[in-house]
Amino acid sequence: MLIVAERINASRKAIRAALEVLDAGFIQEEARAQDAAGAHYIDVNGGTFPGREAELLGWLVDTVQAVTDKPLCLDSPDPAALAAALSRIRTGRPMINSINLEPERFERILPMAIEHRTKLVALCQGEGVPAATAGQKIALADELIARLTGAGVALDDIYVDPLVFPLGTDSQSARATVDAIGAIMERHPGVHTICGLTNVSHGLPARKLINRTFLVTAMSRGMDAAIVDPTDAQLISAMYAARAVCGRDDYCMELIEAFREGVVTP
Amino acid sequence: MLIVAERINASRKAIRAALEVLDAGFIQEEARAQDAAGAHYIDVNGGTFPGREAELLGWLVDTVQAVTDKPLCLDSPDPAALAAALSRIRTGRPMINSINLEPERFERILPMAIEHRTKLVALCQGEGVPAATAGQKIALADELIARLTGAGVALDDIYVDPLVFPLGTDSQSARATVDAIGAIMERHPGVHTICGLTNVSHGLPARKLINRTFLVTAMSRGMDAAIVDPTDAQLISAMYAARAVCGRDDYCMELIEAFREGVVTP
Repeated sequence: MLIVAERINASRKAIRAALEVLDAGFIQEEARAQDAAGAHYIDVNGGTFPGREAELLGWLVDTVQAVTDKPLCLDSPDPAALAAALSRIRTGRPMINSINLEPERFERILPMAIEHRTKLVALCQGEGVPAATAGQKIALADELIARLTGAGVALDDIYVDPLVFPLGTDSQSARATVDAIGAIMERHPGVHTICGLTNVSHGLPARKLINRTFLVTAMSRGMDAAIVDPTDAQLISAMYAARAVCGRDDYCMELIEAFREGVVTP
Repeated sequence: MLIVAERINASRKAIRAALEVLDAGFIQEEARAQDAAGAHYIDVNGGTFPGREAELLGWLVDTVQAVTDKPLCLDSPDPAALAAALSRIRTGRPMINSINLEPERFERILPMAIEHRTKLVALCQGEGVPAATAGQKIALADELIARLTGAGVALDDIYVDPLVFPLGTDSQSARATVDAIGAIMERHPGVHTICGLTNVSHGLPARKLINRTFLVTAMSRGMDAAIVDPTDAQLISAMYAARAVCGRDDYCMELIEAFREGVVTP
């Protein structure tokens, strides 16, 4: 299970405040904590200051790389910001979060991904209304995978995100996403699926409970990566348990070890 | 989601002690607590005292019915004990837990189920080695359903239990069970599936975490009943969240109400 650590995101109040004053210490503490908690990638998002995203994303890349060797997930829809960030990468192969099927975004981000041999989060999203049903998500995934692999991107570098919308407005949204994950993993052996969790519980109570329950159902259909907060002990516990229950942890040895280390809490 | 409350079971130390001295007060407190916590059926199991199961199951039926109107789930493989218990039922239609495909058990329990119009937990179990793979479980479910409906049992009265075995000895056991649940629910629209949870985590740490994670994955494939402890707040919270995530709770209204009432805890 690939963990992309989500905390360094300008949509969070504390991160936005740190970006306003370029507080490197605060950002680095977030990076260290997520690294220590088991993140495989550290997501960096600097996107709420109009006109400054390239500058801030570049600064985040430098700031985070100063304290961790983990590769980065460059979280922006803006080709200019991604270009600035990619030019400063010193850790391992980064991931771009994200490409989609909007023609301009697709055409501008794809060459960068190929040139820098990045991994790619590919959103099931075209122009116009978002894909709500499993069938729509699967069709978009098919097209994304065909076009990306056709352009030379390795299947193993593609992380399809079928997107999930708030359950409070569409009661079938999580189910559609999870069904799409199952179909995408069956139709394209070797591809990865990924999802952020927080959107599913937007506007609802007990958000963390809903988020981790959604994670478990998505993992049970084959999702092998997630954009999450690795410092959330209950979430990580649910992830270990889901791996065991889904048959991905032989004799539950990893669960048992994580329990001994205090990483898994009952 | 149908909740069969599991706490009044002679395999639990406190219940065995209460049965030894026929402590009606203790049993009734367990019944009341499970009733109040939302049980739809109260399971009664008196089966660890050789030669006394019929007497004790009958006593449990009387004792529990004195304090709750909820129907009972008569938990015994012993036709004599079931007959004694059935003759004393005063609450609604009971459930028999359980029938399976062992010839003697099947032939002796089926007529009682038909005579008393009970619901039936039907175990995916024949003679010999237990069914380990999803395919074996599905084949046994097909046979159980065909034979029971052929004998006049309504599909709506059948709760197929594909059985789950400890993950510590078979890492694929939960996955096989969950895959079987998905297939059974697709192949036999109108039938129910049910499972006890505790076996899956036998011998492992963080058992409640594993149990409720297994519950979530089973619900995500359509399981609509479970044999659980309804007084376990984290389990019930996971159940509400799973219903929402699986698209069984329109606009999450039940989750929101349960959260307001303090039944769902984050």
